[in-house]
Amino acid sequence: SEFFDPIDHPHRRYNPLTGQWVLVSPHRAKRPWQGADEQPQPESNVPYDASCFLCPTNTRVSGDVNPDYTGTYVFNNDHAALTANTPSAPENTNPLFRCQSARGLSRVICFSPDHSKTLPQLSVTAIRNVVDTWNEQIEELGQDYVWVQAFENKGSVMGCSQPHPHGQIWANSFLPNEISRKDSLLREYYAQHGTNLLVDYVNSELADGSRTVVETEHWLAVVPYWAAWPFETMLLPKTHIRRMDELTEAQRDDLALAIKKLTSRYDNLFKCSFPYSMGWHYAPFFESDRDFSETSTDHWQLHALFYPPLLRSATVKKFMVGYEMLAESQRDLTAEQAAEKLRAVSDVHYLD
Amino acid sequence: SEFFDPIDHPHRRYNPLTGQWVLVSPHRAKRPWQGADEQPQPESNVPYDASCFLCPTNTRVSGDVNPDYTGTYVFNNDHAALTANTPSAPENTNPLFRCQSARGLSRVICFSPDHSKTLPQLSVTAIRNVVDTWNEQIEELGQDYVWVQAFENKGSVMGCSQPHPHGQIWANSFLPNEISRKDSLLREYYAQHGTNLLVDYVNSELADGSRTVVETEHWLAVVPYWAAWPFETMLLPKTHIRRMDELTEAQRDDLALAIKKLTSRYDNLFKCSFPYSMGWHYAPFFESDRDFSETSTDHWQLHALFYPPLLRSATVKKFMVGYEMLAESQRDLTAEQAAEKLRAVSDVHYLD
Ligand SMILES: O=P(O)(O)O[C@H]1O[C@H](CO)[C@@H](O)[C@H](O)[C@H]1O
Ligand SMILES: O=P(O)(O)O[C@H]1O[C@H](CO)[C@@H](O)[C@H](O)[C@H]1O
Repeated sequence: SEFFDPIDHPHRRYNPLTGQWVLVSPHRAKRPWQGADEQPQPESNVPYDASCFLCPTNTRVSGDVNPDYTGTYVFNNDHAALTANTPSAPENTNPLFRCQSARGLSRVICFSPDHSKTLPQLSVTAIRNVVDTWNEQIEELGQDYVWVQAFENKGSVMGCSQPHPHGQIWANSFLPNEISRKDSLLREYYAQHGTNLLVDYVNSELADGSRTVVETEHWLAVVPYWAAWPFETMLLPKTHIRRMDELTEAQRDDLALAIKKLTSRYDNLFKCSFPYSMGWHYAPFFESDRDFSETSTDHWQLHALFYPPLLRSATVKKFMVGYEMLAESQRDLTAEQAAEKLRAVSDVHYLD
Repeated sequence: SEFFDPIDHPHRRYNPLTGQWVLVSPHRAKRPWQGADEQPQPESNVPYDASCFLCPTNTRVSGDVNPDYTGTYVFNNDHAALTANTPSAPENTNPLFRCQSARGLSRVICFSPDHSKTLPQLSVTAIRNVVDTWNEQIEELGQDYVWVQAFENKGSVMGCSQPHPHGQIWANSFLPNEISRKDSLLREYYAQHGTNLLVDYVNSELADGSRTVVETEHWLAVVPYWAAWPFETMLLPKTHIRRMDELTEAQRDDLALAIKKLTSRYDNLFKCSFPYSMGWHYAPFFESDRDFSETSTDHWQLHALFYPPLLRSATVKKFMVGYEMLAESQRDLTAEQAAEKLRAVSDVHYLD
């Protein structure tokens, strides 16, 4: 009988951060593609677009005028999914109709005044500026909200309604599903092993190397062992850091460099502006932890997640649909194969 | 101070089948759209396409020739995500690198020989034929596999690589995430309340009516209270049915009718072939339950789930991206508003 080989044989891998499995079908990458082609994002060459809501000095839908900003620029989303003063919802009697009111706010972060430059095309200094803005926003909103989700939807295939490079910040009066689940699983591991799951993971990946995409002095980007999206990556500091706030100056500079290298590899893979959703996870602002005098968030480790949908080319993406929605995430190449492809291209952007 | 009104105020609703919350932001539906437009699926008028892999008498990639079938037609997927004879994976020592081998198979079900007719355009008799085929396949594969996922990806926006109306069946040697989680939650509710969660839910929805989309003699389709996708629906029998196999002849005929009405309402909403992923959940084939002499699946209730992505029109869909992937599903209209819109259109297809 045959021996098991993860490159030939379907298998499942366990994600210890979500408690979910992912089905890996590496032999399937060979099937022909007859499905939808995505429109590649048209490259923009103009640094200023008079019709863009995010460019400096332009007027937004709300009537507000953007300042002539030179670094990052943050403003309240004119169509926020959350409001700060939501009244409380009444208790429900039927356990099948449970509802709770939600408070929050959402902000937009313009990464740069330049309409045409996405993250990998910004200088390390400009990216460092984005890092500082993320940190400031998270710390400021963390005073009022238990969770502050910083994220970027890049590319129209990821629902981005604006080509001007920008991200978003949504603050929440509640712990969203993904954070609440991750908090429990990290806490459980810490109780069981006496060590931090993601710190242990960084060390395992540093020792192994087969899933590494970018390594800098202080940071490591890997295709996680349990990745669901074809070229999904996780970016982690090499030491224990609960929130961005705890990073040293050197670690912040180095983070900007790691982001530039990682996103350049992405763009270089299919020679296109690589679409993705990315965002930050870190220790929530639990009441008891407001001043860090408590150690109740020691089970947390700061990390960024990149979820890019492309599978085979600039126009063919992976669809997480029928089987994936109803049963389980499924991928067509192993994490190691994906990491190898990302390592095979340069970490200098193809347009540089 | 203001009173809470679910039509104005952001809130979260709890899905007792997944243990997850969904963020509802009904005030947000008003924002302008500048994002991607989907290509509407081109309508096909030809009942036979010589270049189609699924039409009767045509030759597939594998070299196999389709018979001149007249009802449904089932064959093994030439590019299956699973294989029947996967060798076992070795045990892993690092708890962060957990892997298990996966056995299974996947099949394609052509719904009809007619290349141009999707489910709502088939006769009730032809849809009844699809119901019987689902049931036969599930019962047959259930002899060997604990889980058999029947599903349909409809439309290129849902990753469907083939316009010919068809669905898929993936059999699994494991309980996929979604089923395993649902099994635990249904079991827990049963232990706590002594009643079946989804039977209780059907009764609550029949009493309420505000989320009803289609009601036939034996079936109810609702936008679930906790729906994540804008026009998500759940289709349930009104009595306790663990698996399709337990349905009477009358319930099967009536299911075909309910499917025709529901999918016609979908197409009528934006006057287009409404894309979705749909599939069936029901009592898994646990070893102890193979002959139904055990009652260990009494907590299960057969139901179909429809996950359609469109939000505002035939070309503007909801993107479950950044915030949704990293934090929590979010929707822009209430379940009741969605149900009202689906009720406002006819249950007779606009092309009929
Ligand atoms: O099997 P198909 O139709 O080629 O593929 C489609 O459905 C599968 C099951 O949901 C997905 O894994 C694929 O990403 C999707 O493109
Ligand atoms: O806020 P935007 O960019 O208009 O909207 C985009 O991101 C949001 C947060 O992930 C999603 O809810 C929307 O579906 C998506 O289109």
